[in-house]
Amino acid sequence: MRVLGVDPGLTRCGVGVVEGVAGRPLTMLGVGVVRTPADAEIAHRLVGIERGIEEWLDAHHPDMVAVERVFSQHNVRTVMGTAQASAVAMLCASRRGIPVTLHTPSEVKAAVTGSGRADKDQVGAMVTRLLRLDAPPKPADAADALALAICHIWRAPAQNRLQRAVAAHHARKGPTA
Amino acid sequence: MRVLGVDPGLTRCGVGVVEGVAGRPLTMLGVGVVRTPADAEIAHRLVGIERGIEEWLDAHHPDMVAVERVFSQHNVRTVMGTAQASAVAMLCASRRGIPVTLHTPSEVKAAVTGSGRADKDQVGAMVTRLLRLDAPPKPADAADALALAICHIWRAPAQNRLQRAVAAHHARKGPTA
Repeated sequence: MRVLGVDPGLTRCGVGVVEGVAGRPLTMLGVGVVRTPADAEIAHRLVGIERGIEEWLDAHHPDMVAVERVFSQHNVRTVMGTAQASAVAMLCASRRGIPVTLHTPSEVKAAVTGSGRADKDQVGAMVTRLLRLDAPPKPADAADALALAICHIWRAPAQNRLQRAVAAHHARKGPTA
Repeated sequence: MRVLGVDPGLTRCGVGVVEGVAGRPLTMLGVGVVRTPADAEIAHRLVGIERGIEEWLDAHHPDMVAVERVFSQHNVRTVMGTAQASAVAMLCASRRGIPVTLHTPSEVKAAVTGSGRADKDQVGAMVTRLLRLDAPPKPADAADALALAICHIWRAPAQNRLQRAVAAHHARKGPTA
């Protein structure tokens, strides 16, 4: 399974591609950041994000895209931009027919470090170890994107089983169940 | 000037096209709502919004697109969806080279009713009067989209003058001014 992880943001949108299956060593195929200028108009920035994500999809043809689930937290201004960048990433994947899954930051941290409250250094260190890299990817957004992809590969089997179970339940009960 | 107004939302995204210039009677060219099913996955809903906005752009070729500026208000869940739908609308317009302008809800209400705190009925009544319609457009999202387009036509001359003045200032002072 090849997964593109996206840590959404307008100024720095982290992207990372990881290949592998749960229980086997994972391979990093690429990591980077899609940037747009902070002083550009929001509409132009979204076009820049779209172009960047499209390039990553063209280059790597992922089977799945994992995007960080955005919550409304402290900084309202940042959260809006993050929600909008995540919308563009989801749109780019979904219109190609690539399944999109959202993972919360604590799910991602728990998946790669064992703790949902791990800090950025811990996440970076575990990403480095799990992908057998020489150093933690910089900036942190790039490391977070790889952590999202790893999280998705490890969580996906359970999620897929759940989705199949729900689908089977609906099939038995009919579409209105 | 032909303006597409967009009142963004995932469940109901209001769209309305108004043609005219400030100080002259305005003409409504179309009004409607792009809907996506509330039980669909967010990524699929965004693809539906994109498809709907593209159809409106293809049908009406607006000169400008006016989108409601999203604030983080009471309902966090709704605000996220609104921010994501607005991102798709801005993206669709901007990648065609159509200028996008954001207007706050109170700017829109003040433009069409004279009060930034007008209620939905007042906005609907004024949209009906200004566009010489037989009845207020339903649902309210559709009326709001038309109000956005009207607001933009009336505010645009001042905004354009300001943008030209800023551009001229930068031209005199050089690009780093």
